[in-house]
Amino acid sequence: MSDHTFKPFDQELEALGRRVAEMGGVAEKMLADAMDGLFTFDVDMARRAVASGLLLDTLRRGIEGSAIVTIAREQPVSVDLRECIAALRVASDLVRIGDRTRDIADRAVTIIGEAQSSRAFIGLKSMREVAEKQLKDVLDAYAQRDVVRARAVWFDDADLDALEDSVLRDLLTFMMEDPRNITFCAHLLFCSKNLERIGDHTTNIAETVVWMVSGERMPIERPKTRIASLSIDADRER
Amino acid sequence: MSDHTFKPFDQELEALGRRVAEMGGVAEKMLADAMDGLFTFDVDMARRAVASGLLLDTLRRGIEGSAIVTIAREQPVSVDLRECIAALRVASDLVRIGDRTRDIADRAVTIIGEAQSSRAFIGLKSMREVAEKQLKDVLDAYAQRDVVRARAVWFDDADLDALEDSVLRDLLTFMMEDPRNITFCAHLLFCSKNLERIGDHTTNIAETVVWMVSGERMPIERPKTRIASLSIDADRER
Repeated sequence: MSDHTFKPFDQELEALGRRVAEMGGVAEKMLADAMDGLFTFDVDMARRAVASGLLLDTLRRGIEGSAIVTIAREQPVSVDLRECIAALRVASDLVRIGDRTRDIADRAVTIIGEAQSSRAFIGLKSMREVAEKQLKDVLDAYAQRDVVRARAVWFDDADLDALEDSVLRDLLTFMMEDPRNITFCAHLLFCSKNLERIGDHTTNIAETVVWMVSGERMPIERPKTRIASLSIDADRER
Repeated sequence: MSDHTFKPFDQELEALGRRVAEMGGVAEKMLADAMDGLFTFDVDMARRAVASGLLLDTLRRGIEGSAIVTIAREQPVSVDLRECIAALRVASDLVRIGDRTRDIADRAVTIIGEAQSSRAFIGLKSMREVAEKQLKDVLDAYAQRDVVRARAVWFDDADLDALEDSVLRDLLTFMMEDPRNITFCAHLLFCSKNLERIGDHTTNIAETVVWMVSGERMPIERPKTRIASLSIDADRER
């Protein structure tokens, strides 16, 4: 049913996968820029990250268009259909990772000039390392159709959640120690939440990879998702 | 090209639109439950909101499946194709609204027992009213294919952003006044950010409605999106 002016179906699918991988690369770079911008108070780098957000939106629209045209024209079934739908889903999660990264980058620009305590960055730096590694792993798993690796990413998300709890507690403690830290640390609270959610979207991508390759769904409940109570002994610092 | 066991195309599109509208109703109810749960410290109500999040996921998967099957089978063009893609987009934004609402509901459950100052709720209550009205308006605009109303929602999002700025400032001030407020207010900071983002997704839906009906894209830059500096005179309270 396909017209001879169109690429063969296999090549179309391959091209779609390549574009998703390319988009993943943009998201990775954006995250690195945003975090470097935050930790080094580098406004230009943070602004570069902000600009990448628009690029992600554009790439997603392109992928969405191609995937839908391919589905309409080729009426693929089974694994081929799953590849098309997976491209849509991964692109959507990458845009959401971009949204969260954009928020971090905006904050990096905003906090220049706020009272700064580099102590407050320590936990965030560990979160950043885990989030970046997870994102890299899941994009590799997508590119190589590697279910084992995708599953590993899915299970490791709990590490990022545990780290977030400890970062939140530290930040609240800094706030209690000295009210001049409150504004600065409030921005960092949002940054740590953003990194945790980037981990969630990475986990979504891992689920999509497993489903795309094997047709299998991961269980709906993840080893996670509750809000840390954040209880700190407020009187300790008084 | 359609099989006689299938519904006529028009009816299929109509059914798809109805399911999106139904999903919108679930999102609205979920938001109301989460906010009521938060403001009245009603754990059961908040838990009900949490449960609705799973329902939204299920509804989205169903809509996604139907929209893609419809596109593959009917190969619609022009406004019909836009209706199918709009269903995918709106469902995706509703799931994201559900994610944000879920975070509020989880926090409502968590903060039971934290130090409480109902003063801290005042601004959030105004944000809630605006967010709920916007969501209702955009769902009506979707159901009635009403471009004028959708555009109004798009422009009014700036109100929610302005409200958020003022809520953030108030919450930081409460934190500075008394460190025992810090944990409680930190949760509320996240709630206000969630409401603001719910407004963003509502705005996305407004854009989708305009595009679906008229084929026209709203400008990429909205009248918004920057991070409030949150600067408070920290020494005022010392």
